[in-house]
Amino acid sequence: MAKVKHLVTLDALSVDEIMTILHRADDFVNGETLNLGKIVVANLFFEPSTRTQYSFEMAQKKLGAQTMTFHEGSSSTSKGESLYDTVKTIEALSVDTLVIRHPEVNYFEQLIPHLKIPLVNGGDGSGNHPSQSLLDLYTIWKEFGQLEGLNVAIAGDIANSRVAHSNIKAMERLGMVVHLIAPPQFQEKGYEWHDFDCLIDKVDVVMLLRVQHERHHSEMTLTKSEYHEQYGMTVDRMEKMKSTAIIMHPGPFNRGTEIADEVVEAKRSRIFKQVENGVYIRMAMLEYVLGSG
Amino acid sequence: MAKVKHLVTLDALSVDEIMTILHRADDFVNGETLNLGKIVVANLFFEPSTRTQYSFEMAQKKLGAQTMTFHEGSSSTSKGESLYDTVKTIEALSVDTLVIRHPEVNYFEQLIPHLKIPLVNGGDGSGNHPSQSLLDLYTIWKEFGQLEGLNVAIAGDIANSRVAHSNIKAMERLGMVVHLIAPPQFQEKGYEWHDFDCLIDKVDVVMLLRVQHERHHSEMTLTKSEYHEQYGMTVDRMEKMKSTAIIMHPGPFNRGTEIADEVVEAKRSRIFKQVENGVYIRMAMLEYVLGSG
Amino acid sequence: MAKVKHLVTLDALSVDEIMTILHRADDFVNGETLNLGKIVVANLFFEPSTRTQYSFEMAQKKLGAQTMTFHEGSSSTSKGESLYDTVKTIEALSVDTLVIRHPEVNYFEQLIPHLKIPLVNGGDGSGNHPSQSLLDLYTIWKEFGQLEGLNVAIAGDIANSRVAHSNIKAMERLGMVVHLIAPPQFQEKGYEWHDFDCLIDKVDVVMLLRVQHERHHSEMTLTKSEYHEQYGMTVDRMEKMKSTAIIMHPGPFNRGTEIADEVVEAKRSRIFKQVENGVYIRMAMLEYVLGSG
Repeated sequence: MAKVKHLVTLDALSVDEIMTILHRADDFVNGETLNLGKIVVANLFFEPSTRTQYSFEMAQKKLGAQTMTFHEGSSSTSKGESLYDTVKTIEALSVDTLVIRHPEVNYFEQLIPHLKIPLVNGGDGSGNHPSQSLLDLYTIWKEFGQLEGLNVAIAGDIANSRVAHSNIKAMERLGMVVHLIAPPQFQEKGYEWHDFDCLIDKVDVVMLLRVQHERHHSEMTLTKSEYHEQYGMTVDRMEKMKSTAIIMHPGPFNRGTEIADEVVEAKRSRIFKQVENGVYIRMAMLEYVLGSG
Repeated sequence: MAKVKHLVTLDALSVDEIMTILHRADDFVNGETLNLGKIVVANLFFEPSTRTQYSFEMAQKKLGAQTMTFHEGSSSTSKGESLYDTVKTIEALSVDTLVIRHPEVNYFEQLIPHLKIPLVNGGDGSGNHPSQSLLDLYTIWKEFGQLEGLNVAIAGDIANSRVAHSNIKAMERLGMVVHLIAPPQFQEKGYEWHDFDCLIDKVDVVMLLRVQHERHHSEMTLTKSEYHEQYGMTVDRMEKMKSTAIIMHPGPFNRGTEIADEVVEAKRSRIFKQVENGVYIRMAMLEYVLGSG
Repeated sequence: MAKVKHLVTLDALSVDEIMTILHRADDFVNGETLNLGKIVVANLFFEPSTRTQYSFEMAQKKLGAQTMTFHEGSSSTSKGESLYDTVKTIEALSVDTLVIRHPEVNYFEQLIPHLKIPLVNGGDGSGNHPSQSLLDLYTIWKEFGQLEGLNVAIAGDIANSRVAHSNIKAMERLGMVVHLIAPPQFQEKGYEWHDFDCLIDKVDVVMLLRVQHERHHSEMTLTKSEYHEQYGMTVDRMEKMKSTAIIMHPGPFNRGTEIADEVVEAKRSRIFKQVENGVYIRMAMLEYVLGSG
């Protein structure tokens, strides 16, 4: 069982492995096809997520694989079954790979020692979100033809986002320079914090994080429009960016909070391009764990 | 982008286009097949609808296309994402066609200027329901071998049904004579209103509309059995119809209100035939927007 | 219409038919394939059930058939449509076979006289669960190479389980000897009741029933740990079993109530094997009603 390949965190991937996945995604963009007609991928989403779930399903369709999607409402978890027992039951149906999203950080640690089939992590709450991280890297790499030496600004609630931490680490491993911007209550020790307007004309990429109104409500002392003015991508900031610089956001985005309405589909925005790229990255991730990569 | 073909209202189709769709549906009934194996159709249903959703999915399967069905509960709309942003995100996943049902009348107007892929309207609240209208026309056309000159009675809440208005217009364009029956509170100016029992032995088709108890509760001054006696298809009325005349209902129907229990599966009833025909009409509609029709 | 073949209860199957289904399941385990590419199976689950629903879907995928799964929430049943009208509507979509699970015992009796296509019963509340019964028999048959003469103990709420009654009858028809164990309030007249510890070293199979906390709450006078000690499969009891004996449970199981945590994945446990076998049994059941068996 030690031989089963999983893809659950970015930290566990070497720089070489990351670059291999980006190159394979590019092959798929350029028309490479596989035909995994006998392969059945089970998608277990214990949290709602339009982008991630349907992107994985689309990746499976493009690989010619078969898709089974498990809806929490209709599952035995409503009878109190544990994640472990649900997953082992689905494995016993003879599916070939699992894609799981679950609100519990590191949910996969209890599963991996007992799994006979590969697991791709579709997100563990505020923990890891490797498919999002990889599609972000792919989008930047495609844009600039390289990663090394690029200046990236990340703006938003970094302190509470383990995904951001893991992205920062990966970007630095890949030779990128990361600059952080956050309201004081979302800053933390050990990092240097920047003023958005001092940085805006120097960076190649601005990555905006979603303001999670549902989680941030109590801590957030700024109104939406105050957040927008101080930490959001306004039209004014967008116009100060370098001519080649791009704007990214993992979505779903809050128009008027972290991003101005007019920026969403502006020339610099790669927001919908990220969604498009996500399908190809997930194809490469599935290929990676299935061992034909 | 101006070249993308959509199918969102009956009013926007010419008589020739309507007849072409009916003929193509007939070809599919007679065994014509396509193999759209690479085509992915995304179904977005923001309102529950057994008949329409599953009929579209079945049409996609019969066309050999791939189906992605988006369940509102598991989508980012639960995080407050707008229809526009959800649809643009799904388009970015590289699906080929959209089928959307949404409670907002004319929801498609905000989308069409920005869509790069075709949209088929699966119903916009009380607005339009072109696949239902077309399957009704197909059912009548198959029954009588023609549309011109037929006498049709429509019974029910016509004033509040924009679908009925749009059907009346299309039927008149196709040379049919339409007679309307409704309780006084569901009548409106500009139309002539008939007594059901004076008409019953003269028409070729009776189309019953669903009494929407959930919407009509406050306005409805008639009990169910009063409605049934005065405006419903009773066994007695059915027996007075011409020997060749048929009864239609879009479903889901209320037994004992607009239709008697015994009428639902009577010889004259085409209710389940309409469901059957709907699959072939939706095949023809998908083919129409995909441009191979 | 009398010629349509259904599979709704174990009682309606002869011993020969049962054995034919077990043999066909075994053929599928050994790699036999069919390609039912044009066949569309509609799955209607009006009760949540991970194991049964996804097992049937997997069986359909392995048969190469097409799958349509109807989610109660998005169906017209939320508009008050009856089971009969929903099922007749889905039949009218030209699907080829129905798999239905419904909380009402014998729900299928109202449907069968009117169906033009085969129905496989995926469970009727506390009534019948033929796919579970058949996969249990298959698991035992594969384990011992025969059924005749085997000693089986069934432990749990037998009085309220019509599935148990139907299983007991089938096992006796197949030449097995069945021993029953239950707390006094779950015993009933007409059966002989045994002490778990007197039997434990004599039987070939122990089948545990799920304690349905949601249904049993009021009647259950035992705490979970009392139930476990007196009627559950403890580690201690497991160790007293014959060297070749096995433990079964239909799942989802309650660790610490009817089964000890350590027993679930112990060597003697066939719990996940049952799930695995269920896919092949359901392939054989679908083949049986489709008439190519």
